[in-house]
Amino acid sequence: MRPDTFVARLARVRQAMVGAGVDALLLSLGADLPWLTGYTAMPLERLTMLVVPAAEGARSEQVPVLFVPELEAPRVAQVPGAFALAPWGETDNPVAMVADLVRVITGDAPRLAISDRAWATFLLQLKASLPGARWTVASAVTAPLRAVKDESEVAALAAASAAADRVAARLLGGEIALVGRTERQVSAELSRLLLAEGNERVNFAIVASGPNAASPHHEASDRVIAAGEAVVCDFGGALDGYCSDITRTVFTGDPPAELRHIYEVVAQAQAAGVDAAEVGVPCHRVDEAARKVITDAGYGQYFIHRTGHGIGLEEHEDPYMVSGNGAPIAVGHAFSVEPGIYMAGRWGVRIEDIVVVTSSGPLNLNQADRGLTVLSV
Amino acid sequence: MRPDTFVARLARVRQAMVGAGVDALLLSLGADLPWLTGYTAMPLERLTMLVVPAAEGARSEQVPVLFVPELEAPRVAQVPGAFALAPWGETDNPVAMVADLVRVITGDAPRLAISDRAWATFLLQLKASLPGARWTVASAVTAPLRAVKDESEVAALAAASAAADRVAARLLGGEIALVGRTERQVSAELSRLLLAEGNERVNFAIVASGPNAASPHHEASDRVIAAGEAVVCDFGGALDGYCSDITRTVFTGDPPAELRHIYEVVAQAQAAGVDAAEVGVPCHRVDEAARKVITDAGYGQYFIHRTGHGIGLEEHEDPYMVSGNGAPIAVGHAFSVEPGIYMAGRWGVRIEDIVVVTSSGPLNLNQADRGLTVLSV
Repeated sequence: MRPDTFVARLARVRQAMVGAGVDALLLSLGADLPWLTGYTAMPLERLTMLVVPAAEGARSEQVPVLFVPELEAPRVAQVPGAFALAPWGETDNPVAMVADLVRVITGDAPRLAISDRAWATFLLQLKASLPGARWTVASAVTAPLRAVKDESEVAALAAASAAADRVAARLLGGEIALVGRTERQVSAELSRLLLAEGNERVNFAIVASGPNAASPHHEASDRVIAAGEAVVCDFGGALDGYCSDITRTVFTGDPPAELRHIYEVVAQAQAAGVDAAEVGVPCHRVDEAARKVITDAGYGQYFIHRTGHGIGLEEHEDPYMVSGNGAPIAVGHAFSVEPGIYMAGRWGVRIEDIVVVTSSGPLNLNQADRGLTVLSV
Repeated sequence: MRPDTFVARLARVRQAMVGAGVDALLLSLGADLPWLTGYTAMPLERLTMLVVPAAEGARSEQVPVLFVPELEAPRVAQVPGAFALAPWGETDNPVAMVADLVRVITGDAPRLAISDRAWATFLLQLKASLPGARWTVASAVTAPLRAVKDESEVAALAAASAAADRVAARLLGGEIALVGRTERQVSAELSRLLLAEGNERVNFAIVASGPNAASPHHEASDRVIAAGEAVVCDFGGALDGYCSDITRTVFTGDPPAELRHIYEVVAQAQAAGVDAAEVGVPCHRVDEAARKVITDAGYGQYFIHRTGHGIGLEEHEDPYMVSGNGAPIAVGHAFSVEPGIYMAGRWGVRIEDIVVVTSSGPLNLNQADRGLTVLSV
């Protein structure tokens, strides 16, 4: 990202804080910090925290301050006009330093918002240091802004999905041996291929075969994949910070009629979910559209998760395609559509693509083949 | 771990809660949960939380309850006599479910302890649901217990360190090409080797060359390593859950006299830190012993971090070898000893081993050569 992107985002966030009634934002772990500064906090016991004052009154003049452990300060790329850097030493008390600055900026009864993923230990320490504060989560301010991807973010998501598609194409093309190997071995190969495609990290590489495919978040195990099974492969990484997430279910031999039917039902449900993602439609409609296909086919009780999650710098973020979420879909929203049918002890099928919403409708970022694929390997 | 290990640990924790004045422990992200149950929560927006009542009064009869997202429930390995499983569905409110159980167990004004690494968003939601509660961190109860490793944990740490040593031996033996490759390439090779040695994950693989070596937590970059440089390699993974962490600094050509001297100073400081780790000695003495060698040599201002951190299921945990920590070292404590000298714009050197404390003194779990190593590759 260009430095002026960060400066512009900070200005928008500081303005949004005024409307949300937040005096200062305290950002630590999670994607708000890198979205606003390009810097990602290390998930360690040493506190990293950006203090962002609202664009209100005298506070508008105060530059955001990034507190970082002294030994991590050399990792920070300075962004002119964005924030000041405040390294703290090994015998300093960073919580007291943050609290002191917050008091100067906001007074004794501030309304504060902390990163959703900040560690509880830091929130408890900050609450003890700032007894007059009222607290909420940073996402109350940032989530609606981050949910709408700008042009460069859509391009980054498209590049990440294309990289995942290239790995999926190898899977669907039979280049990745399945039968006779363990789930763990196949997962390791998917991970290696994701890295070879340029991802800086692998977020997950689920390989769930046979009855294991009935566990949506199955961890790749030492189970040896056999012929004649459904194998759910759900993988994603991060490329230039932006995440991918794709699921294809392949078959190591002709599936029985019922399983073949289930696959077609899931494929239709997935397409129905994508088609429902029109601008202005409430998010829960995407869930309903996919779920209706599965319920009408008599498998409703076997679709045990929501239909999708937003994606961006985080693998799961707003907006969620789930029952009860009435927020309207907007241009720039990016999310997964991933219905599934899971029958304990027997099998499971899931198909997932990432979709970005444009003014002319939902756009599939994943292009890997969704047809039923039987592999002889 | 055997199931009775988990049952015994839960009993000890529930007893320790009584002394610590904690009515219920709420465990989510972090190592307390796997240490007590074998199950690791996924770092996602769906809440996983184990509710553990203290071994006090009627509460003693209540079995701990593990709330997990329904789609992750199949991942949980049940442990007879340890806990009950409570899966929640996609439209349930897991925070309300946890709060309801806590109220039943503890009444309206409980003293609660939450995982240090639980997300702030869940703590804020729980606080809103349990307005009469007083809160502290779970580590107030668990850290002193987890810091003392039992025999099987020491064996696991030794196996993890041995695997890291085998990777270090390749580095020191010149099997990993350095000159002409980027830090990122070397980091990727170290990661690959850690996985090949059986680690289930790589926690980090710092490769910091030339002036980058002056940044202790440097991220491997596209800088090409040249001849005649110091290269700090600091890497670790997890093997059967337990972490490794080793640093060796190697030289791509004969170092100048000052850098050679600095290396010897750091090596002496490292040995002095290990030697100071006797049972009953306060932790800060290990820091002082290492720091004194560096300060006496005139480089005190360039040693900008503490000397060490505990290690176990987490890469950084109690006890910390840092100024101000007066807690006494005990048999079973395991921690890093890793002094360094960092001169901005010029170079850096760090040497690190994992040490476990036995009744006959400190035992080095890492055996990779600590002598100055000049590589011609």
